Amino acid sequence: MATIVDFKKNGAEPKASLEPLLRLVRADLDRVNATILEHMQSPVHLIPQLAGHLIAAGGKRLRPMLTLGAAALCGYGGDRHVRLAACVEFIHTATLLHDDVVDESDLRRGQESANAVWGNQASVLVGDFLFSRSFELMVGDGSLQVLKILSRASAVIAEGEVQQLITTNDTATGETAYLEVIQAKTAALFAAATRIGAVVASRPKAEEDALDAYGTNLGIAFQLIDDALDYSAHQAELGKTVGDDFREGKITLPVILAFRRGTEEERSFWRRTLEDLDQHDGDMERAQGLIRQHGALDDTIARARHYAAIARDALGLFPDGEPKHALTEVVDFCVERAY
Amino acid sequence: MATIVDFKKNGAEPKASLEPLLRLVRADLDRVNATILEHMQSPVHLIPQLAGHLIAAGGKRLRPMLTLGAAALCGYGGDRHVRLAACVEFIHTATLLHDDVVDESDLRRGQESANAVWGNQASVLVGDFLFSRSFELMVGDGSLQVLKILSRASAVIAEGEVQQLITTNDTATGETAYLEVIQAKTAALFAAATRIGAVVASRPKAEEDALDAYGTNLGIAFQLIDDALDYSAHQAELGKTVGDDFREGKITLPVILAFRRGTEEERSFWRRTLEDLDQHDGDMERAQGLIRQHGALDDTIARARHYAAIARDALGLFPDGEPKHALTEVVDFCVERAY
Repeated sequence: MATIVDFKKNGAEPKASLEPLLRLVRADLDRVNATILEHMQSPVHLIPQLAGHLIAAGGKRLRPMLTLGAAALCGYGGDRHVRLAACVEFIHTATLLHDDVVDESDLRRGQESANAVWGNQASVLVGDFLFSRSFELMVGDGSLQVLKILSRASAVIAEGEVQQLITTNDTATGETAYLEVIQAKTAALFAAATRIGAVVASRPKAEEDALDAYGTNLGIAFQLIDDALDYSAHQAELGKTVGDDFREGKITLPVILAFRRGTEEERSFWRRTLEDLDQHDGDMERAQGLIRQHGALDDTIARARHYAAIARDALGLFPDGEPKHALTEVVDFCVERAY
Repeated sequence: MATIVDFKKNGAEPKASLEPLLRLVRADLDRVNATILEHMQSPVHLIPQLAGHLIAAGGKRLRPMLTLGAAALCGYGGDRHVRLAACVEFIHTATLLHDDVVDESDLRRGQESANAVWGNQASVLVGDFLFSRSFELMVGDGSLQVLKILSRASAVIAEGEVQQLITTNDTATGETAYLEVIQAKTAALFAAATRIGAVVASRPKAEEDALDAYGTNLGIAFQLIDDALDYSAHQAELGKTVGDDFREGKITLPVILAFRRGTEEERSFWRRTLEDLDQHDGDMERAQGLIRQHGALDDTIARARHYAAIARDALGLFPDGEPKHALTEVVDFCVERAY
């Protein structure tokens, strides 16, 4: 039956939210936003105009909030985390600009995407600017250790994006290859964002590694849920976009599981729609139906729960208190938004 | 008369070449090439494949040679210049990949461009990878001063590229705006490449500044000549590509001068061809004719000579010898290749 009972089996409304983290870091986050605004300026007006379009469109600022939260968890009392959180958001924004060019997206955060308004050319070049500016900001901070973490993360993200491009439209992609892609394109920046919190606070390596593990596993869980939501009927009910991955022929875990569990006739359907991109009315609904029928959404969420559990346990080293509570609730939020 | 007498008024064959610089730095340049090959590797095979296509296609390696030459001029005896010269070439290569996407070019260095072979998407993402990798390499070097110089240069290049995008198809662009664009998109990396030579050798600020001035002015002269060559009949005789800028509607100095010196009817021609990109058979020849008729090529080259003279004088502080001779001959080469 085409109900979404599997998505709401708790019955209860989601309780976890980003609120505790936001309360914890609000003052710092205001300074991060001011730093972002200040450093995206350029005498070439198109740059702040285009970057501002995307940055003003909102987004949760999840990655910079994680840097601020991790710094709080480490008892950091200085100023450097503000600037570095802005660097993290600049890298993320540059990636989004280039992603939208690569995916030929027309929408981002519910608004026309920058490439739809100003063209691919400007999006590529302004992305390059934000990326360079992020490194300038980091150099201003002066820590080679931070520079190493973020330059490494940037290279890994690019590798992940190239790998994703290769697996797009390839239904032979397996779960392992998929996991490598999301680890690189999403989790690497989460991990860098949280690791930096320990670095600025000069905490021992064990805590750095713990925050890296927290970020990595949170990032994987986050992306798994994102990929599940793209096929979720519940998501569609909420008026949010679904089906982007399907239209682009991205091979995400819900598809990988449904493909492997499906009949030969179903595999032909996936090949036609995702490899040949030969899509017709009703195909997205059939895709959702097959994914549900094979329990592929439930199991994608189950995989996310696994990584979420690791993320929570990674914080075990740290003392209880508001920061630990807030960062734990981020994990819950990332998974619960599936419901 | 449609001769190219203005381009060959010396009568003599060009004498200056990159040979003296190449002789000076050959051993180091081999190590730069090895460093480039080593650091463009990735488990994602498309990355070395695509990057290797462009890097193997040759190119003069002018920018890394300038870093090596500047280090020699400063009497540097260490190893760091090799890695940093590779960083400079990585940044340049990333820029070329993105440029070809922005310009929708099919050819680069006489071969099919990477975007023509692998698509725009892969070119954008591999460019991002090379750019990130360049920063990783710099961080490995460990000098915040170098990181500052190259991250600043990268941001300026991106600003210049955006500004160029804005002035493309705009015949109202004046010489000042054009100069700002080429200073940012080309000269900034030349300046960073040469300045680094003084930085690794721990030379006084006056020498750093002198090498920066050398690079800046050499870069401006280089780009002016490049822009002249794109309309040169002589260049066409040599079997090299001409007319790319015209086809794309780029507003370079030869056009700016011809436009301002032309009649209203001629300006209509420029507007139709460069603003509306409404181009027909014979238009490129007419453009070349107008540019010649108004002395716009000669005067573009005259402007280049001005910056070349400043570049030569910037080396005045340094002792005579093979490095200074080689770097001076680079300046001569950059201008004389117009003939």
